[in-house]
Amino acid sequence: MTVTIIGIGLIGGSLALALKEKGLADHIIGIDNDKQHVQTALQMGLIDEHCPLEEAIQKSSLIVLAVPVDALIALIPEIMNRIDKQVVMDAGSTKELVMKKIEGHPKRGRFVATHPMWGTEYSGPQAAVRGAFVNKAVVICNKEESDEDALQLVTRLYQQLGMHLVYMEAQAHDLHAAYVSHISHITSFALANTVLEKEKEEDAIFELASGGFESTVRLAKSNPAMWVPVFQQNRENVLDVLNEHISQLRKFKSCLEKENWVYLKELIEKANGIRRILK
Amino acid sequence: MTVTIIGIGLIGGSLALALKEKGLADHIIGIDNDKQHVQTALQMGLIDEHCPLEEAIQKSSLIVLAVPVDALIALIPEIMNRIDKQVVMDAGSTKELVMKKIEGHPKRGRFVATHPMWGTEYSGPQAAVRGAFVNKAVVICNKEESDEDALQLVTRLYQQLGMHLVYMEAQAHDLHAAYVSHISHITSFALANTVLEKEKEEDAIFELASGGFESTVRLAKSNPAMWVPVFQQNRENVLDVLNEHISQLRKFKSCLEKENWVYLKELIEKANGIRRILK
Repeated sequence: MTVTIIGIGLIGGSLALALKEKGLADHIIGIDNDKQHVQTALQMGLIDEHCPLEEAIQKSSLIVLAVPVDALIALIPEIMNRIDKQVVMDAGSTKELVMKKIEGHPKRGRFVATHPMWGTEYSGPQAAVRGAFVNKAVVICNKEESDEDALQLVTRLYQQLGMHLVYMEAQAHDLHAAYVSHISHITSFALANTVLEKEKEEDAIFELASGGFESTVRLAKSNPAMWVPVFQQNRENVLDVLNEHISQLRKFKSCLEKENWVYLKELIEKANGIRRILK
Repeated sequence: MTVTIIGIGLIGGSLALALKEKGLADHIIGIDNDKQHVQTALQMGLIDEHCPLEEAIQKSSLIVLAVPVDALIALIPEIMNRIDKQVVMDAGSTKELVMKKIEGHPKRGRFVATHPMWGTEYSGPQAAVRGAFVNKAVVICNKEESDEDALQLVTRLYQQLGMHLVYMEAQAHDLHAAYVSHISHITSFALANTVLEKEKEEDAIFELASGGFESTVRLAKSNPAMWVPVFQQNRENVLDVLNEHISQLRKFKSCLEKENWVYLKELIEKANGIRRILK
């Protein structure tokens, strides 16, 4: 089938690679606001063609929206207005707002809301990764609002990419995403700013930073163009989790201030409980 | 040469593997409070022999202390009192207190204070990793207080393991370590507790957690027996950095509360500056 991918960045580009590799798309049309991204994607062979949006929609069976979630909200009505029987899916990190945006749209059934749980701290088509989605989860939201054939096309596609499906309502998705993804980014951004602010000897960071620091801070390289809209759209959940995170950090602070080593040990032992969940 | 390693855990065990592999030790004596660790280390071939401390010291040219930093402080006078011309080195994550502890000791020159900047979130001899220290930094503290031959033995050993040497005063070490290692652990412990506290659906974490969450939270698996003493000994530096980190997190919180997306973008762009330092 012919697939249009709107947003040929980290996710769109990696998806293009995977669709080609698995023989799921024989022709990929790429659309991106950034002309340089389109050029790079063509040169890298991520996409086969670039053409105007209307033409792309007419030629395609599937339209994938892999743009930042603010662009997603802006674009989705236009796409939905232009399609006939095509299937539209997104890959956005937030889900409630996009659901509200297309609620009651006459073509609502053609849309499948998805969030593949994979990413890196890099962006743009040159960040595309081969085999990116294998063994990862993909969340499908509000599946009962999608037409059966549209849902089947999208779920089969993800299964063939090696992903396992998790079904969730949009509201639950946004809450869980705040915990397992959005807060990690804020933590990492704030940690980077802490070190950049106070550690005046950057050479020392460079020389001494070991794997532990690197893994905790790597998400701080992530693109604001993607993340500001995520925090905008998931503001309330992220604020809840962030408040809890600050109060957890204050417990560590209080232990240090009061030299309460017994309670500090308890806090760490409690944190070790994450082993139950992540091997 | 014969080497005694006191503390056959993650660091001691990995060091034993590396010393054997590079032909730097032909006989390794292992000592550990935990009898099970000694048994495991013998079975795994990490160590060749276990014997009483006094006998081990007599038989060895080099004694390595790879114990938690509270045990280090407790043990170091006894070791220094018992040695003759042997070289003693540690691998502790804090340096000021151990320096104070042996200040003015008649055998001070035989001790070389080191901190190899490598570790994982796992502990015990079964956590030992082959090739662990390659291309990592090792800090040597207050080198002018060590005898020349002792310093030379230790620096050559680390160089042969593939490490690059960084010389620092103990005080500077502890400050930098608070930034590039200790704070990451507190962040990670607090993040784990945030999620464990508020996210009641552990299945959701398990299913949805992607690489980003895992890398930010993996240090939360770290052993309190190692980390509580580190925070105890580096309390003031860690508190300073932790206060700054909480105030950085509050900036993100304030942006979300006030919906100040312009400033949020600035904060993220500033955090992106970590790219300058970490590729």
